[in-house]
Amino acid sequence: MTTQTSGCSKKGRGRPKVFDRENMLDNAMELFWQHGYEATSLSGLVEATGATAPTLYAEFTNKEGLFRAVLDRYVVRFVEKRKAELLCDEKTVEQALLGYLTAVARGFASKDTPAGCFFINTSATLAASSEPIACCVRERHVRQEQTLLDFLRRRQQRGQIPEQTALATLAQFLSCVIYGMSVSARDGASEEKLMQIIHTTLRLWPALVTPDEKNQR
Amino acid sequence: MTTQTSGCSKKGRGRPKVFDRENMLDNAMELFWQHGYEATSLSGLVEATGATAPTLYAEFTNKEGLFRAVLDRYVVRFVEKRKAELLCDEKTVEQALLGYLTAVARGFASKDTPAGCFFINTSATLAASSEPIACCVRERHVRQEQTLLDFLRRRQQRGQIPEQTALATLAQFLSCVIYGMSVSARDGASEEKLMQIIHTTLRLWPALVTPDEKNQR
Repeated sequence: MTTQTSGCSKKGRGRPKVFDRENMLDNAMELFWQHGYEATSLSGLVEATGATAPTLYAEFTNKEGLFRAVLDRYVVRFVEKRKAELLCDEKTVEQALLGYLTAVARGFASKDTPAGCFFINTSATLAASSEPIACCVRERHVRQEQTLLDFLRRRQQRGQIPEQTALATLAQFLSCVIYGMSVSARDGASEEKLMQIIHTTLRLWPALVTPDEKNQR
Repeated sequence: MTTQTSGCSKKGRGRPKVFDRENMLDNAMELFWQHGYEATSLSGLVEATGATAPTLYAEFTNKEGLFRAVLDRYVVRFVEKRKAELLCDEKTVEQALLGYLTAVARGFASKDTPAGCFFINTSATLAASSEPIACCVRERHVRQEQTLLDFLRRRQQRGQIPEQTALATLAQFLSCVIYGMSVSARDGASEEKLMQIIHTTLRLWPALVTPDEKNQR
């Protein structure tokens, strides 16, 4: 996962700043995050980024290209950092999950960015005409679930989760809770309220990892 | 919760149909549901409903007025029916919840309407300029949580849920799962996949209603 770079994006020492790509992407990100993909207009993006329309076209071809670059930037700025919480192998399963979910909740409830998850907000209402974007966002959700699944598999291999536990079902359930936290944050839920949801989820952990006799996979 | 009625909405026997209000609201509902509040334009609404712009203005004043009428119609068509599942007093708590959540999942995954929850889709990306609509949708979420809380309180009073269980926290958690199911449905999750999430939630029920010693309210 890397941001695209381009010649004009690098600020050379002493050179006049022509085009601060990262700052521009952050401004575009805020607009998409707040209004969604469809309701964000190119004229709005021009205004928010301070770039001219020809510059945006030259750099990203169209709104879809700009959105994809913004998405990569979001992953670098937010997703990768949260993911790192799941890689702390010295932590217990619950501790690592608490670290991950806390980082997610903080991001969703932060006052520095629009409330909720960037992917969920931007994709909540996509028309058939925006199918490539819908695909792209769906793929990110699949990756998020996969990240959780990989984490659970590693911990199962180490004997920290029962062998018979259906991990795919568990990863899907955890993803569902994360999606729900995004909607709650958008509704105005504070970080404290999201932490309550996390606390409940982790309190259920022993029951969650108990193999389901009716539905073993 | 009633739909507004107006003289021209009633189809008189033998009279030419001037304006089929319910059908018109259903068409507008589909558009808002699919695209969200902001990305739905008045010209799109004119096209989808088959009504003229002056008719829409005369009937609903503006887009916000039309949206509020659509919201009332959604409540009558979908919300009230689901809610009835929680009022089946002869069912056990789990059976009633299963009935309610199944109705919700069916609605979210139905091919007859856009995927996911109407409230969540329409409100995922609202600008500050749409604050009255955001408030209105938030209020519906509060009511949904309140419906769950009322149900849990009735069952607690009958001794079907332990006295020490923090019901507000429980209602909030269940709401979070419902929101998450909406996002999953929007991502393309089938009814079967949503039922898996419901199955997991209800499997956790004994743990969910066990009073949390660290956090009694």
